Amino acid sequence: MKAMLDKLLLALSKINSDICFEIRFWDGESKTYGEGKPAFVLTFGSERAAKRILRDGALGFGEEYMDGNINVDGDFSELMHLGATPTIEDIKLSLPTKLGFLLQHLRTLNSASRSAKNISYHYDRGNDFYKLWLDESMTYSCAYFHSENDTLEKAQQQKYEHICRKLQLKKGETLADIGCGWGGMLIYAAKHYGIKGVGCTLSRAQVDYGQQKIRAEGLEDQVSIIYQDYRKLTGTFDKFVSIGMFEHVGKNYIPTFLAKVHSLLKPSGLGLLHTIGKEKATPPDAWTLKYIFPGGYIPILDEIVRGMGKTGLVPNDMENLRIHYAMTLEEWSKRYEANVAAVRKMFDERFVRMWRMFLNGSAAGFRYGTTRLYQIVFTNGLNNSLPLTRQYIYS
Amino acid sequence: MKAMLDKLLLALSKINSDICFEIRFWDGESKTYGEGKPAFVLTFGSERAAKRILRDGALGFGEEYMDGNINVDGDFSELMHLGATPTIEDIKLSLPTKLGFLLQHLRTLNSASRSAKNISYHYDRGNDFYKLWLDESMTYSCAYFHSENDTLEKAQQQKYEHICRKLQLKKGETLADIGCGWGGMLIYAAKHYGIKGVGCTLSRAQVDYGQQKIRAEGLEDQVSIIYQDYRKLTGTFDKFVSIGMFEHVGKNYIPTFLAKVHSLLKPSGLGLLHTIGKEKATPPDAWTLKYIFPGGYIPILDEIVRGMGKTGLVPNDMENLRIHYAMTLEEWSKRYEANVAAVRKMFDERFVRMWRMFLNGSAAGFRYGTTRLYQIVFTNGLNNSLPLTRQYIYS
Repeated sequence: MKAMLDKLLLALSKINSDICFEIRFWDGESKTYGEGKPAFVLTFGSERAAKRILRDGALGFGEEYMDGNINVDGDFSELMHLGATPTIEDIKLSLPTKLGFLLQHLRTLNSASRSAKNISYHYDRGNDFYKLWLDESMTYSCAYFHSENDTLEKAQQQKYEHICRKLQLKKGETLADIGCGWGGMLIYAAKHYGIKGVGCTLSRAQVDYGQQKIRAEGLEDQVSIIYQDYRKLTGTFDKFVSIGMFEHVGKNYIPTFLAKVHSLLKPSGLGLLHTIGKEKATPPDAWTLKYIFPGGYIPILDEIVRGMGKTGLVPNDMENLRIHYAMTLEEWSKRYEANVAAVRKMFDERFVRMWRMFLNGSAAGFRYGTTRLYQIVFTNGLNNSLPLTRQYIYS
Repeated sequence: MKAMLDKLLLALSKINSDICFEIRFWDGESKTYGEGKPAFVLTFGSERAAKRILRDGALGFGEEYMDGNINVDGDFSELMHLGATPTIEDIKLSLPTKLGFLLQHLRTLNSASRSAKNISYHYDRGNDFYKLWLDESMTYSCAYFHSENDTLEKAQQQKYEHICRKLQLKKGETLADIGCGWGGMLIYAAKHYGIKGVGCTLSRAQVDYGQQKIRAEGLEDQVSIIYQDYRKLTGTFDKFVSIGMFEHVGKNYIPTFLAKVHSLLKPSGLGLLHTIGKEKATPPDAWTLKYIFPGGYIPILDEIVRGMGKTGLVPNDMENLRIHYAMTLEEWSKRYEANVAAVRKMFDERFVRMWRMFLNGSAAGFRYGTTRLYQIVFTNGLNNSLPLTRQYIYS
C-alpha cells in the first residue's frame, strides 16, 4: 500500500519538479518529495484515507480531507496544483473513468425541477456567506484584470465594462440575462449604458438581494430580476448575455439553451456567452459534481460552437480568459481564509474544508489544468453592420 | 418545366425581396421578379440549361453559364447574392445532398501526390494572371480593413501586421508558415519584425516568385520558401502561422495537420490559423470542388477546435473576419473585370466566366451565405505568461 502510494507521489513529483512537499504516513514515517523547502505537509491519519485516493481519485481525496482523515499544513494551493496536473487525468482514462462519464451524464439531466434544486443547493448558502469572500458587487464569476495589481472589486467592474463593450450596448436597448446571479451585470449595464433588462435565476436568495439592490439604486424602472427557469423566459431582446450559468445547463440541454437564446434575441442581435469550458473532453470531477455543483457540466468548446451553428447563432469573437479565473479564484480563496473564523460560525468544519478545496482546486484547474473561461460573442443570424475591427473594445 | 422554374424564382425573390431581376426564357418570354429596376437580366439560351439548374443546383448553373448557355447582363454579384441565400441550401438537404457529402469526402482524401496536383491546378495558373487582380504583395487571402475606404494594398499589409501582433513576434524569433503562397507573410514579418522563417507551398510558381522577391528585398538570410508538403516540414519554431491553406487539407487530414503544428511549435509557443470555415455543416459546393479547388474542404469551426483540443493546442482567441473576405473578393472581382481583356488573351471564354463566377460567388458566400473567415490564436499547451488583455493588438 505504502509502496504504491510512494510510486504515485514520485510520479507526480517528477512531473511537477518545481513543487517540494512532505508526506507524513499513518505509521509515523515521513518523506520529502522534490528539492528544497516543502510547500506543504500532508498527513495521512489512516491507511484507509490513502487507499481511498488510490481507489477514488479526487473524490476519495476530497472526502477524506473533508472528514479530517487527511490534514494539510502550509500552501494548500500548491497541493491543488499537484492535483491539477493534466497527466494525472490521462492516467485515469480507464474503465472507471468511462463509467464516470456515464454517471456524470445521468447526473446532469437537468429538468426544471432538478435545476431548481441544484441551483438552490449552491447559491442559497446564504448571502452573508458569499459576502465574506466575494467583492462588494457580489459578482460570482471570472473577473477581468487589466493588470496584476487590480483589486478584485475593480476587475469585476472591468469585466462588466468589457462585456458591455463587446455587446455594443446603447441607451434604451433591451438586454436578457440568463443566470443573472445577484444582479451585478444588469445593474452595471443599467447605470452605465442606460439599458432596460430582465434577468432570471433559480436562487431565491439572489432574487431577494438583487431586487433590493435595484431598488436601492433607483433602477427599478430599467431592470428586474425574476425567479424563473431559463426555459420559461419569454420576450424579444436587442442583446443577450449569460455569465457563468451555462455550466449548470448540462450536456443534454445545450441545444435547448441555445434555442432559447435564439428565440429571445432579435435577428442580427448580439449575444455574449461567458462560460467555463475546456478544449478537450476530460474525465468528470466526481467530487465537484457530488459536493459543489450537482448537475454541473463543463462544456467542451466544440460542443458550444457546434450547438450555436445548428441553432443559427454565428460565433464572431472568442476570448479565453482562463488566467483571469485563476486570479479571481486565488483572490476569493485569500479572502475566504481571512474570514474563515466567520465561516466556522455558519458551518461545520467539514464544510470549511470542502469550500477550501473547491476554491483552491478550481484555481489550480484554470492555472495548471484543463479548465478554461470562454467569452463568445455571437450574432443571431448574420449582421453585416458590425464594426470592422475590435478596436472599439479597447479604446 | 417553366412553371417549376418560375416557382423556384418566386421563392428566391420572396426571400430576397430587395433584389429585383429579369429572366428571359428560352422561348422569348420574359418576366421581372421583385419591385424596381432589375439589377441583372439572366437569359436562358435553352430549356436544357434551366433543367440543369433544377437537377444539379450550383454545379448545373455554373457549367451552363461557363458554356454560354446562360448569359447574364448587369450586376453579376447580385445574382450570386440570390444564390447564396442559406435557405436554398436547406431546400437541397435531400438524398442527393447526402450523396454529395460522401462524394466530397472521397474527393478530399488529399494524399501528398494528390495535394501536389490539386494545388498546382489552382495556383500555377501563371503569376501574370494573378498579378492582374491581386494586390502588389500578391496576397491571395482575406485582407483586414480598418475602414471601408482602405485600399486592398493597405488592407493586405494591415492583415500581416494584425497577425504579427497577434503572434507577438519578436526580433530573432523563428516562424513556420505552412502554405506561404507568394511569401507575403514571411517577407512582412522579416522586414518589420526581424524574424527568421521558413515557408512551404506546393506551387512551383509561388516558390519561384517568392524566392526571387526575398532575394530582391535582401532577406535571404532571414526567410526562405521551399517546395514541400506540410507533412514533411521539420524543425522547431517559436511561432507558427498558416493563412488560407487549411482549406486544402481535407476533413480526414485535419488531425494530421494539427499534429504537425504541434510538433513544429515549441511548448507554450503561439500559433495562428487563418482559414475559411463555417459554423454549420452545409452541402458541399460541387461546382467549386470540380472547377476551382479540387480537394478543397471548408472545415466546420467545431472540427477545428476539437482537433486542436485533441492535439494539445489551446484555442485562445478567435476572430471572425467574414465581412473582410467579402470586401476582399469584391475588390478582386472589380480588378478582374477591369483587366478581363488581358485575361481573355491568356484563357478562353469558358475560363473567363468560370473565374468570374468563382470570385463573385465566393464574395456572396461571405456576405450573405454560410462561409466565414476565422483567425484562431492558440498556444501549444498552456502559456501562463501571455498579456492579460488583447489591448496590445490595438495600440
